[in-house]
Amino acid sequence: MTQSLSSQLAVTAPIDLSRYDSRATTGFDGKKADAKKGLAAIGEELADLQEKLFAGGRAGTSPARVLVVLQGMDTAGKGGIVKHVAGLVDPQGLAITSFKKPTPEELEHDFLWRIEKALPEPGMIGIFDRSHYEDVLIGKVRQLAGPEEIERRYAAINDFEQAFTDSGGVIIKCFLHITTDDQKQRLAARLEDPAKYWKYDSGDLDERMLWDDYQRAYAVALTRCTSQDAPWHLVPSGHKWYRNWAVAMLLLERLRAMDLRWPEASFDVETEKKRLAAL
Amino acid sequence: MTQSLSSQLAVTAPIDLSRYDSRATTGFDGKKADAKKGLAAIGEELADLQEKLFAGGRAGTSPARVLVVLQGMDTAGKGGIVKHVAGLVDPQGLAITSFKKPTPEELEHDFLWRIEKALPEPGMIGIFDRSHYEDVLIGKVRQLAGPEEIERRYAAINDFEQAFTDSGGVIIKCFLHITTDDQKQRLAARLEDPAKYWKYDSGDLDERMLWDDYQRAYAVALTRCTSQDAPWHLVPSGHKWYRNWAVAMLLLERLRAMDLRWPEASFDVETEKKRLAAL
Repeated sequence: MTQSLSSQLAVTAPIDLSRYDSRATTGFDGKKADAKKGLAAIGEELADLQEKLFAGGRAGTSPARVLVVLQGMDTAGKGGIVKHVAGLVDPQGLAITSFKKPTPEELEHDFLWRIEKALPEPGMIGIFDRSHYEDVLIGKVRQLAGPEEIERRYAAINDFEQAFTDSGGVIIKCFLHITTDDQKQRLAARLEDPAKYWKYDSGDLDERMLWDDYQRAYAVALTRCTSQDAPWHLVPSGHKWYRNWAVAMLLLERLRAMDLRWPEASFDVETEKKRLAAL
Repeated sequence: MTQSLSSQLAVTAPIDLSRYDSRATTGFDGKKADAKKGLAAIGEELADLQEKLFAGGRAGTSPARVLVVLQGMDTAGKGGIVKHVAGLVDPQGLAITSFKKPTPEELEHDFLWRIEKALPEPGMIGIFDRSHYEDVLIGKVRQLAGPEEIERRYAAINDFEQAFTDSGGVIIKCFLHITTDDQKQRLAARLEDPAKYWKYDSGDLDERMLWDDYQRAYAVALTRCTSQDAPWHLVPSGHKWYRNWAVAMLLLERLRAMDLRWPEASFDVETEKKRLAAL
């Protein structure tokens, strides 16, 4: 039996990110063109399962909901996943949140306050483009909080995610792994193409200067906050086509495992048929 | 020169909905299979233009935003438009709101309060699945408000929409027109297929009994609230394939007319290239 992609990419022990190949194509047997075909095939099954998930939420018969957490250095492809993977399903069933620098109001609350408010409702697939993990990443690297508070946050995140999964939520956490060379190429491409200037922020270079600090912060976060119910996945993202395929497959594997079913009728079908026939 | 689809479908004078053919394929030269191909072609251009629209919002260089208002009797296809038309673009750039029966909190405010909060931000395409028009449709038919208040609302809607378009918004209003026979077929299909039970609500038949009242209320709303800047479009929706093609084309025509451009760089490109090369 083939191992699931989730088990192949799951983080289960302390890691050193510099030892991972961003161009790996773990679990995928083929080339770029095959991945595009594979993605389209995944898309059809995803769309079917997503409709069942959505139906359960709409009918109020199931608390099931899904949250995809996307993290990665700038240019790793968080936006690309939203477009190419989330774009495979009915947008009505998506709740996409892109987390920016916290507002003054958000800063007045615990770091999980704004996250809680953005959790998907039953039936929905939530996508977090950045997330509560920023608070142990930039929060740690830029020392926006002291060491004790950062320490507290790992545990708070684990409790928070456990509560989510205990209440019918499924969480899929993807770290989109690229190297400093991958990022250099992609930032350069943004500076070459006027159609991509809007994606470029000169602040990105300030963060790039702290690359090693971020990699260490990621390694800690991925290790401290991975569990059976809410594992982190290390998704090699040097090849965009592999990255898209892999995240779509991780989502598909989880949806398949949810054993989603169409809700039962909440009315008497024969009675309604007769009523309709008379109208 | 071919007339735009918008001008062909726009409501410009008092109408009697019973005189419109729901199976018309106005402005489309071909059959079902051609419409599917046509929709895919529209999708590519739509996705490009939507990215430009989104870029302007993200860069803060343009107040442009788009709102698609979907109205129609049950089964007319509001959800289908979200899936098949909105589904053509990057979901990151979509803000979809499905308006239900107002909550007690919403009822404490003016009817436009919840609408205002759901308007798309610059760069976004908002989709309203039902809208402020419910307040002059079910509101009128079910006498949820008195005649004077209903009368006030037409003017309030016009002022509200004018303010939206004056501030960089583009509004595309689509009435998805079906007949009572179309609806009967579609409701029957929902009662035949367990995968569709969740879409069925026995309350739908109560509204169906008021069909003629709704048609009259629609005719008034479409006539009173149509204007050069915010015209209503009567979209024949007896054929789902035509309906999807037509709404996608209405959206495409408006996006084309917006003369969307990539934002200029907010930084000095050469300086940034040098900084990047050194890192």
